[in-house]
Amino acid sequence: MANLNPDREETALYLEDLQVGQRFVSGTHRIDEEQIRAFAQQFDPQPFHLDAEAAKGTLFEGLVASGWHTAAITMRLLVVGGLRIAGGIVGAGGDISWPSPVRPGAVLHVESEILELRPSRSRPDRGVVTVRSETSDQLGEVVQVLVARLVVRRLVQGGTQGDQQSKES
Amino acid sequence: MANLNPDREETALYLEDLQVGQRFVSGTHRIDEEQIRAFAQQFDPQPFHLDAEAAKGTLFEGLVASGWHTAAITMRLLVVGGLRIAGGIVGAGGDISWPSPVRPGAVLHVESEILELRPSRSRPDRGVVTVRSETSDQLGEVVQVLVARLVVRRLVQGGTQGDQQSKES
Repeated sequence: MANLNPDREETALYLEDLQVGQRFVSGTHRIDEEQIRAFAQQFDPQPFHLDAEAAKGTLFEGLVASGWHTAAITMRLLVVGGLRIAGGIVGAGGDISWPSPVRPGAVLHVESEILELRPSRSRPDRGVVTVRSETSDQLGEVVQVLVARLVVRRLVQGGTQGDQQSKES
Repeated sequence: MANLNPDREETALYLEDLQVGQRFVSGTHRIDEEQIRAFAQQFDPQPFHLDAEAAKGTLFEGLVASGWHTAAITMRLLVVGGLRIAGGIVGAGGDISWPSPVRPGAVLHVESEILELRPSRSRPDRGVVTVRSETSDQLGEVVQVLVARLVVRRLVQGGTQGDQQSKES
């Protein structure tokens, strides 16, 4: 085969391809009442996520999406094109906040920015990247801020993690 | 009616009912491969969450649940009995980490501890409670740590938020 580095995902990004300040914009996802209720029934069965009428008498004064639903949609938007990391988006953790509620009909998108890059000392094949991802609705209202620590592959010795493992074994 | 405070949810906890150091234990949830794949298809379509065979060649060396799936299951366990907050569990945000992966067949439960109570200065009907929730599997392995800031109702002037609003209107 002509490709000398067949394991390399050509369109995906390795630690060496990233730099602080780099920005990424995702596609969009429209959330509706049916999605909000389906997620809530499974994972967050509370009146303000389940029933528009009952939700009027709550803190939110109407139906809103579970914050974990917003987080899950944000992940989907990142995975399907908002942040193309080689080997996938692997989160070690992060800080999350929901400054405004997500209402039925909201059209969400995610803008991400690389805040920090830190190669691992013990594992030469990887590093930790801190990414700030802001999820906004169609009115520009920020509905979620996630500062996540991701484990990202390095292109070590001209090979990928896969190459490295083959050499070692 | 004999109940002088009909809005009060007798089994649920208001800010005044909570104290630092108080602990809560949830029920359990068993996660299987089908659940892991269904969540991933919708929200986190990556090989290590979708395909046991493909997952062997990844960082995880086998199928694992999405961290957001673990977060969603944790929320369900809290909502259905792990943390009975009056008016529901309303999160403003928090810090989340996934120290170990969740494998198919894991039986998860959540142990929570109140870390801090802070009445709101501007809103006498509520406060912010910081809760640390540790999600563990059947082997005692901690798979998620969430330190969340929750908005919790106060029992102000002998009434609930609902009473207070009636008096004001």
